[in-house]
Amino acid sequence: MSLTIYRKAHFNAAHRLYKEGWSDARNFDVFGKCSNPNYHGHNYELIVGLTGDIDPETGYLIDLKVLKDIIKEEVEDPFDHKNLNVEVAEFHDLNPTVENIAIVIWNKLRKRLDSKFEISVKLYETPRNYVVYTG
Amino acid sequence: MSLTIYRKAHFNAAHRLYKEGWSDARNFDVFGKCSNPNYHGHNYELIVGLTGDIDPETGYLIDLKVLKDIIKEEVEDPFDHKNLNVEVAEFHDLNPTVENIAIVIWNKLRKRLDSKFEISVKLYETPRNYVVYTG
Amino acid sequence: MSLTIYRKAHFNAAHRLYKEGWSDARNFDVFGKCSNPNYHGHNYELIVGLTGDIDPETGYLIDLKVLKDIIKEEVEDPFDHKNLNVEVAEFHDLNPTVENIAIVIWNKLRKRLDSKFEISVKLYETPRNYVVYTG
Amino acid sequence: MSLTIYRKAHFNAAHRLYKEGWSDARNFDVFGKCSNPNYHGHNYELIVGLTGDIDPETGYLIDLKVLKDIIKEEVEDPFDHKNLNVEVAEFHDLNPTVENIAIVIWNKLRKRLDSKFEISVKLYETPRNYVVYTG
Amino acid sequence: MSLTIYRKAHFNAAHRLYKEGWSDARNFDVFGKCSNPNYHGHNYELIVGLTGDIDPETGYLIDLKVLKDIIKEEVEDPFDHKNLNVEVAEFHDLNPTVENIAIVIWNKLRKRLDSKFEISVKLYETPRNYVVYTG
Amino acid sequence: MSLTIYRKAHFNAAHRLYKEGWSDARNFDVFGKCSNPNYHGHNYELIVGLTGDIDPETGYLIDLKVLKDIIKEEVEDPFDHKNLNVEVAEFHDLNPTVENIAIVIWNKLRKRLDSKFEISVKLYETPRNYVVYTG
Repeated sequence: MSLTIYRKAHFNAAHRLYKEGWSDARNFDVFGKCSNPNYHGHNYELIVGLTGDIDPETGYLIDLKVLKDIIKEEVEDPFDHKNLNVEVAEFHDLNPTVENIAIVIWNKLRKRLDSKFEISVKLYETPRNYVVYTG
Repeated sequence: MSLTIYRKAHFNAAHRLYKEGWSDARNFDVFGKCSNPNYHGHNYELIVGLTGDIDPETGYLIDLKVLKDIIKEEVEDPFDHKNLNVEVAEFHDLNPTVENIAIVIWNKLRKRLDSKFEISVKLYETPRNYVVYTG
Repeated sequence: MSLTIYRKAHFNAAHRLYKEGWSDARNFDVFGKCSNPNYHGHNYELIVGLTGDIDPETGYLIDLKVLKDIIKEEVEDPFDHKNLNVEVAEFHDLNPTVENIAIVIWNKLRKRLDSKFEISVKLYETPRNYVVYTG
Repeated sequence: MSLTIYRKAHFNAAHRLYKEGWSDARNFDVFGKCSNPNYHGHNYELIVGLTGDIDPETGYLIDLKVLKDIIKEEVEDPFDHKNLNVEVAEFHDLNPTVENIAIVIWNKLRKRLDSKFEISVKLYETPRNYVVYTG
Repeated sequence: MSLTIYRKAHFNAAHRLYKEGWSDARNFDVFGKCSNPNYHGHNYELIVGLTGDIDPETGYLIDLKVLKDIIKEEVEDPFDHKNLNVEVAEFHDLNPTVENIAIVIWNKLRKRLDSKFEISVKLYETPRNYVVYTG
Repeated sequence: MSLTIYRKAHFNAAHRLYKEGWSDARNFDVFGKCSNPNYHGHNYELIVGLTGDIDPETGYLIDLKVLKDIIKEEVEDPFDHKNLNVEVAEFHDLNPTVENIAIVIWNKLRKRLDSKFEISVKLYETPRNYVVYTG
């Protein structure tokens, strides 16, 4: 009897799509206006899903307050109102595409959550573009 | 050639997270303000998914009118504008967490729908918290 | 040069539409299933608007952090996860229709906000029913 | 390390649910008001998902500009502001149910996209009814 | 103490933008693909607002069940799953632009609702285009 | 017979709340994390409303294609994927608060649109914060 519970969160950040070691011209060729050296930004909407078994005593898969606090510590506090390229260590050598941001978030949550849970990360870069990563 | 069709529905209800046999104090320790003895409530948004084969003659997986009526009879009529703890038999001995409500709905739909369909139940307790249960 | 700024908030609550002094039967005649004596509930979504002049130095109409904190103190803390009829003093003698809840919120905010601002309160009882009150 | 990226698109179209070879009366028996011979219509919202591996150099699963252009050529240009029954060749002998429209879209995209990608098509006929097809 | 209450509804319809007495070519010049002689269609989302005084006894501006039924009789029943140009009398000599549809709806509701209420009609033709008409 | 028509658009941008002539410390005191010198960003959602009379011949208030193109030229092209502080001339001496961005947009549109139209600008900085400016 397996079930998935989801919790929404959000953060606003600046970023630039940029491949270290490429010229600005080549970055522009590949990433277009997303590689603007002055940065642009997004309201990222995040939905974290945990799959597992329900505790028959409480009827909870997890106390959502616990999940909310972990998302705050691992994602909202370090990413919100930040420049991802400049201020977030994980993206110093990693292009902050929505794909890579989702994987970074998943890896951070994986370390904090009991291994009995499967984790999914849905990340909206805009209301029109989003990714899902499940490890 | 398998496909899933989804139908949305909704109901408004009061509930209290409450473990029979625990004191109010212990219930408060575990469930916080959700265990308020005077109840609180939600607009539950429900999305039922059926997976199966398309009837090659009609191009329908199922007549959605049929699914809509079953959701009305099994979920909306018995749950809408009700106090789940007090007035819905399934929760007399079962804590009405969003997890348990989704499982109860799934079980009720399972009895009414042809076994050729796989069923998924997505249930939003708030726009920020929801579950998916697939049996 | 007048402008309106809006801030969203939300609270979940139980209520019953009930006119003090009427029988349960008469309450049911007028309010239908909304008068269920065991209560039902909603996810209320609130949007507060303030109209005024922009501070030319900061470019702010108001610091939204200030507005957010006032909404939390006046609305979210006293209403969230509560039974409006039983636990919120303003509704002891006032039927908690969405109309009356919006007026109560407006009056509470009016006392806390500088009179230079006009206030609007938009309150969703469900995604399909809502009111706007402007004093 | 597999991930899915999603892109939204939309088109507005008229259609009629209609089984070739059945009388209008029998079509009405099965499809109800959806078989109105004068047509009705919808704002179709489409979400295309591609599952695959991320290019470690760019951090992209696919350049979304490429996906956006393929969706435009294969779906938006031929379907938008059209009568599906009358003007879209795929539905001359196929009932344009939301199920069949999703399958037609999936098949058109399958021919255009690298076989290394798995494709999912989510198609909303209304905000309350939608399907997912994954081949 | 004046307040506005809103109720959502929806209908799906086919239409063609078409000026009687103009050639198809001139219609296409002015209305583009919206003048497709084979029709296209939309999911129209309607929000009706009534402004007035609250009944101090009930706390209601109007019983929303009454408003819901009037919207059903005046708008949903005659417009839903219809071809507006062909099947709705009001548009036999009137181009069914979203502007004109909103005005037609407002006029129909005006005849049914007590003159003590001001009426507003918000009509979405798509999630990206909508009008508001207040008489 | 006056009516308002609305058109949605959007742009993604980086910005920093920053008062020229104040120290970074004072900027931080007033604007908090929004004054991060490395910038953050948003998905701005814009809704432009035009109020006026309907052309009785076409049933249009304005051809939305015309409005869409003006929004593209005046807002989307100069603002999208840009750093507002660095790259948009209007904000070299003006703090890019959501209030000021809305006013700048309104002023740009006012110059391009016939004076017979009243203009409203609704601008979402996040799904939770937005402004309306009407001149």
